[in-house]
Amino acid sequence: MPNIDGTTAYGEATVNGLLAKEEKPTVPAQTNKDDIQLVLQSFRLLIADLCQQFGMGHPGSAIGMAAIGVALWKYVMRYAPHQPDWFNRDRFLLSNGHACLFQYANLYLSGYKAMTWEQLLSYHSERPDSLCPGHPEIEHEGIELTTGPLGQGIANAVGLAIASKHLSATFNRPGYEVVNNHTWCMVGDACMQEGVGCEAFSYAGHLKLGNLTVIYDNNQISCDGSVDLTNTEDVNKKMEACGWEIINIHDGVNDVEAIVAALEQGRAPERDRPLFINIRTIIGVGSAVAGQAVAHGVPLGEDNVKAMKKAYGWNEEEKFIIPGKVKDFYADLPQRGEKLVQEWKHLVTAYSKEHPELAKTLKDRMAGKLPDNWESLIPTSYPSDPTPSRKSNNLTVARLLAEIPTFMVGTADLTPSVNLTYKDYEIFNPPSLKPMSGKQGSYKGRYIHYGIREHVMAAIANGLAAFSPGTIIPITSSFFMFYLYAAPAVRMGALQKLKVIHIATHDSIGAGEDGPTHQPVELAALYRAMPNMEYIRPGDSEEVAGAWKAAIEYQGGPSMISVSRHAIPQLQGLTKRSGVLKGAYVLQEEKDADVTLISVGAELSFAVKVKDELEKHSIMARIVSFPSHRLFREQSLEYQRRVLRRNEGVPAIVIEPYMSLGWERYADAGINMKGYGHSLPGKYIYDHFGFEITKMATRVRTFLGDWKDGNVGRGEFVEL
Amino acid sequence: MPNIDGTTAYGEATVNGLLAKEEKPTVPAQTNKDDIQLVLQSFRLLIADLCQQFGMGHPGSAIGMAAIGVALWKYVMRYAPHQPDWFNRDRFLLSNGHACLFQYANLYLSGYKAMTWEQLLSYHSERPDSLCPGHPEIEHEGIELTTGPLGQGIANAVGLAIASKHLSATFNRPGYEVVNNHTWCMVGDACMQEGVGCEAFSYAGHLKLGNLTVIYDNNQISCDGSVDLTNTEDVNKKMEACGWEIINIHDGVNDVEAIVAALEQGRAPERDRPLFINIRTIIGVGSAVAGQAVAHGVPLGEDNVKAMKKAYGWNEEEKFIIPGKVKDFYADLPQRGEKLVQEWKHLVTAYSKEHPELAKTLKDRMAGKLPDNWESLIPTSYPSDPTPSRKSNNLTVARLLAEIPTFMVGTADLTPSVNLTYKDYEIFNPPSLKPMSGKQGSYKGRYIHYGIREHVMAAIANGLAAFSPGTIIPITSSFFMFYLYAAPAVRMGALQKLKVIHIATHDSIGAGEDGPTHQPVELAALYRAMPNMEYIRPGDSEEVAGAWKAAIEYQGGPSMISVSRHAIPQLQGLTKRSGVLKGAYVLQEEKDADVTLISVGAELSFAVKVKDELEKHSIMARIVSFPSHRLFREQSLEYQRRVLRRNEGVPAIVIEPYMSLGWERYADAGINMKGYGHSLPGKYIYDHFGFEITKMATRVRTFLGDWKDGNVGRGEFVEL
Repeated sequence: MPNIDGTTAYGEATVNGLLAKEEKPTVPAQTNKDDIQLVLQSFRLLIADLCQQFGMGHPGSAIGMAAIGVALWKYVMRYAPHQPDWFNRDRFLLSNGHACLFQYANLYLSGYKAMTWEQLLSYHSERPDSLCPGHPEIEHEGIELTTGPLGQGIANAVGLAIASKHLSATFNRPGYEVVNNHTWCMVGDACMQEGVGCEAFSYAGHLKLGNLTVIYDNNQISCDGSVDLTNTEDVNKKMEACGWEIINIHDGVNDVEAIVAALEQGRAPERDRPLFINIRTIIGVGSAVAGQAVAHGVPLGEDNVKAMKKAYGWNEEEKFIIPGKVKDFYADLPQRGEKLVQEWKHLVTAYSKEHPELAKTLKDRMAGKLPDNWESLIPTSYPSDPTPSRKSNNLTVARLLAEIPTFMVGTADLTPSVNLTYKDYEIFNPPSLKPMSGKQGSYKGRYIHYGIREHVMAAIANGLAAFSPGTIIPITSSFFMFYLYAAPAVRMGALQKLKVIHIATHDSIGAGEDGPTHQPVELAALYRAMPNMEYIRPGDSEEVAGAWKAAIEYQGGPSMISVSRHAIPQLQGLTKRSGVLKGAYVLQEEKDADVTLISVGAELSFAVKVKDELEKHSIMARIVSFPSHRLFREQSLEYQRRVLRRNEGVPAIVIEPYMSLGWERYADAGINMKGYGHSLPGKYIYDHFGFEITKMATRVRTFLGDWKDGNVGRGEFVEL
Repeated sequence: MPNIDGTTAYGEATVNGLLAKEEKPTVPAQTNKDDIQLVLQSFRLLIADLCQQFGMGHPGSAIGMAAIGVALWKYVMRYAPHQPDWFNRDRFLLSNGHACLFQYANLYLSGYKAMTWEQLLSYHSERPDSLCPGHPEIEHEGIELTTGPLGQGIANAVGLAIASKHLSATFNRPGYEVVNNHTWCMVGDACMQEGVGCEAFSYAGHLKLGNLTVIYDNNQISCDGSVDLTNTEDVNKKMEACGWEIINIHDGVNDVEAIVAALEQGRAPERDRPLFINIRTIIGVGSAVAGQAVAHGVPLGEDNVKAMKKAYGWNEEEKFIIPGKVKDFYADLPQRGEKLVQEWKHLVTAYSKEHPELAKTLKDRMAGKLPDNWESLIPTSYPSDPTPSRKSNNLTVARLLAEIPTFMVGTADLTPSVNLTYKDYEIFNPPSLKPMSGKQGSYKGRYIHYGIREHVMAAIANGLAAFSPGTIIPITSSFFMFYLYAAPAVRMGALQKLKVIHIATHDSIGAGEDGPTHQPVELAALYRAMPNMEYIRPGDSEEVAGAWKAAIEYQGGPSMISVSRHAIPQLQGLTKRSGVLKGAYVLQEEKDADVTLISVGAELSFAVKVKDELEKHSIMARIVSFPSHRLFREQSLEYQRRVLRRNEGVPAIVIEPYMSLGWERYADAGINMKGYGHSLPGKYIYDHFGFEITKMATRVRTFLGDWKDGNVGRGEFVEL
């Protein structure tokens, strides 16, 4: 066991017996143990200097993880620095994203072209084009997904591993392993504690993802002090209970050989469970703050870094030194990567001859192409009976999902409720699993039962989408209200512009008797405010068709299609799928309008009825259907004015049983919720909250009176 | 083991040896085993009939849990049906809230006054005053907290148990156990899977909460089918790894005696770990759909219920029958409860004589009284140097927290960042724990290290607040962005109007180099839209004082005080704590104003500087500080108009580096974020996004030109 109290004690430790092991081809016998020590020292000092430079940064974990970096980048991972997007590369994720310097320095050392020396030095500089932000970001070479919010990375890694398992099962043929990459994920203590991490571990174990290795940087330090202040669980036992194999590494600071041996076990092709390598490290090792919380998020200090250099026998006045021997140590990696890519390309060429159709499908998917006919798989018309829009959803996409294998559909244990199954759907599950009830699955399956784990569902979907953009389009589903559980991961998808489609059902107080815990009234505000997020509330089946067209065509991030539990009228002849693509459109025009009624989603038909009611009182209303704020804002000002006509002096009133926040931009008044919902069956709930047609019409009339009398000030949104 | 395929097989099973056990005073020897069977049958049929009545509801779990209900309400729990708010009562939480009929029926049978027969029958009726909503709600007698969103209940239960541990440690004296209640929590398979549940189990084990018993309704069925479709972990092993003791009950359908024995172990006073009772049950037992997913969320069906009655030997035509023997079985409970209350009252009387000061403190806290001088503990003035508002926060509350024991402060592993420690603070931790680093704690401690578990932190805080409202005021803290992880629990607090104060730091792009994952741009929209939530962004130390005054005085729900990481100017002489209490107020008036600048929080000073810049161009600006939407909306229309003056034709422009959504109600234009942030040190980030004073002033001038020229339509919010 490493000595937690040691300061520079580990700087001089030896890499026990690295030379003795000759059976691992990836650890060349000729590597001198002193060379490894030099590499480790060099790496640690580089990290220390980088944090010192601008007096900011997270040095400790990256320093403690030096040996793990050598094992991964030099010996075990299969990747090509000069072709960072090589399809079959191993994926690496740094779930403890604050330790980003660990990754940046390794990308630099292993020869990624974009990560120049100058770029590496830009960490925490004023350069807005720095490739070294405070957490790893997907936009940059060698970074698979953006990490930082703790627990997300490990969940994404499960998604990457599922993607690989699924593509392997779908495309590999005897002698042609065109997809067989491994997923490596580093986690810190935080990822072991965060709920989304716990969900990820439990589900990955269930799925028996033998192509996933988690490397636990067990430094036992978090911001508040030693981890035992807040967590004393038996981590290995817990992981075993979740179906993982465990390997312990006692000297993670120096024992590169042991780490390599463990990682190699992770890659073994016959594996039927994920591997958890528990590596004891020391945060900030070699420095005076080794093993202390203070090493986590602030630079070690000038004197301290000098002392490290002195203890290592380096010149304490020199900074940013990478000895020639260290550069030589990493010099072969670009070429080795190139060789891997060439071998794989030869394999794919042979595969294309042997299995031409499969190869074409794979290449199309790699290029992000959907079959040309995808839109024709969406119905052109729908039944006219009142239909729950969750059912409209199924009518819309059942063929699309059945016939286009790019889609992987999942639900957080709401299969009977979200209506997203399709003809002959196959479940993604380990083929060895024989469930007590339910169908046996396989890794070819495209329907994912995520369990009651909404958060990890959305985070896994991010991983599926990022594996190779366009190859898999993940679809998640749950009740809208539970997308609050999933929100941190949905946001990460939006931040990364990942193409994920979320289907949120039970999206209104119409959910009824389940009550206020299940009735969303404020959640849409979050998704309407979220950058890059295409949040759409379609008003009937025709609009559901438009929502899907919008979601599939949208390349700027995730979409969320928000649908009803209960049956809603079909406004045939009024609703237009093309209108959805513009965010809002005129559902019913009225030249001499007194008022515009804006309505949306499950309650779209209310406006139509209120209009009729108002006509009895000689008030002429026009109606705007408004399924998506974001899409509407993308339209020209001229279009927006034509739709809303507020510039002509026609006041607009929005009807939506959510809180009004966000609608003030488009409306002068609103018939909205003023608080939480109530448990009442669907047929009573709307009336209970005043969404009864004649009452709404009366409120509109009162408002119009005030409006004309000048009792309503300009810009004063009135809650009716 | 129960037979999963059995239909009515368990209706006739015996309660093995219930008569033989005489050492348990709570299981009277004279109880006839046939009587127990009758009680179980009666309970199951009552549930079945209740769901049949309106063709809605969740029958299966409640039916499967019948024996557990008998063990809890009849034999083990200490409570008083006629004094449901008795301070020292055992707390029971139904974390699997959809099984609410289980609780409603038991409340009825054990004699809670409000739960009349008529009320019980109102489940899923059109009655808005029903005490039997679709999930248990805190407003009703015998319900400790609202449950339903899965995993929340178990986390709340941990909070209840912490509250009890803490109050016991604080107030009990030898011979005077004035607080020694137990917390019982039922969980289903979902609570075992949800991340927040996993966090709760891990943390409760760490805390060694011997006063908490979790009863796992292990029916192995979820909506999608058998649980092994999605979860195959070794639950007991995992719970053991988390520090729990495990007891298995193999026949949870009928073996009341075994359940009682297990529960009694949970209550043992010397316990030093929480207890997990894994009870194998059968969903919908006794019916044709026993053990099937379909028994979960829809009524069993008329014929099916008749068949159950027939198999039990009951009249299949009769509904809602509770035999006299069953009524008799429960008849003693109100009286037993009364006795418990009387004994406790006597104890408190004696305690008050022996320990008068302690008793007075306890009584004041039970009454929700803070010391009269609480406001005087907040400074009347602050240093004038630029100060991070997270630091202002500490300056404001350090004495309040040190001197008023009602507050329990916690953080999700960000002690060095959130600045909420206070003089001689003591950590809440098991006294037996000796952390490798950091102070040893005790159950008297009021500073809670929650670990990196934001979600459970907020859910536990709900439990602390609900234990006995006002006795404990929990304060949580983390980065604002991580309150997205915590959001489902924060929302539950808002729904239940629980007094929790959340301190959200690093609340702007000024968080800087951590980058877009950590920079909130859309999250405020959620909290501003959330009913009952008092979301406040104070602009300097003086406003922080106002925010605390508002939060402490607010009785309508939780508050969130949103503060900066970085130093912000102190606008002394301009900011007013009393202004915060009105939500928005005039910071600088200007009679002949051309424009109102609205500004808020970390960026409040921007407006002051922009005003100066505009003056150089003879444009007169007035400034409104706007820390809270909710508080402002509560003011009179007259006040609102006086602050905003839009009705006088003065356009308003908001400056806030968040997405604009929500500000359109108060402003005609905005200088806001248009997407996610960027990783850049704090001193560069604002300029990078155009929040530079002269640039902002130019944008304001351009807008005012367009405004005067009529290029901006009424109600057209313009993103500058």
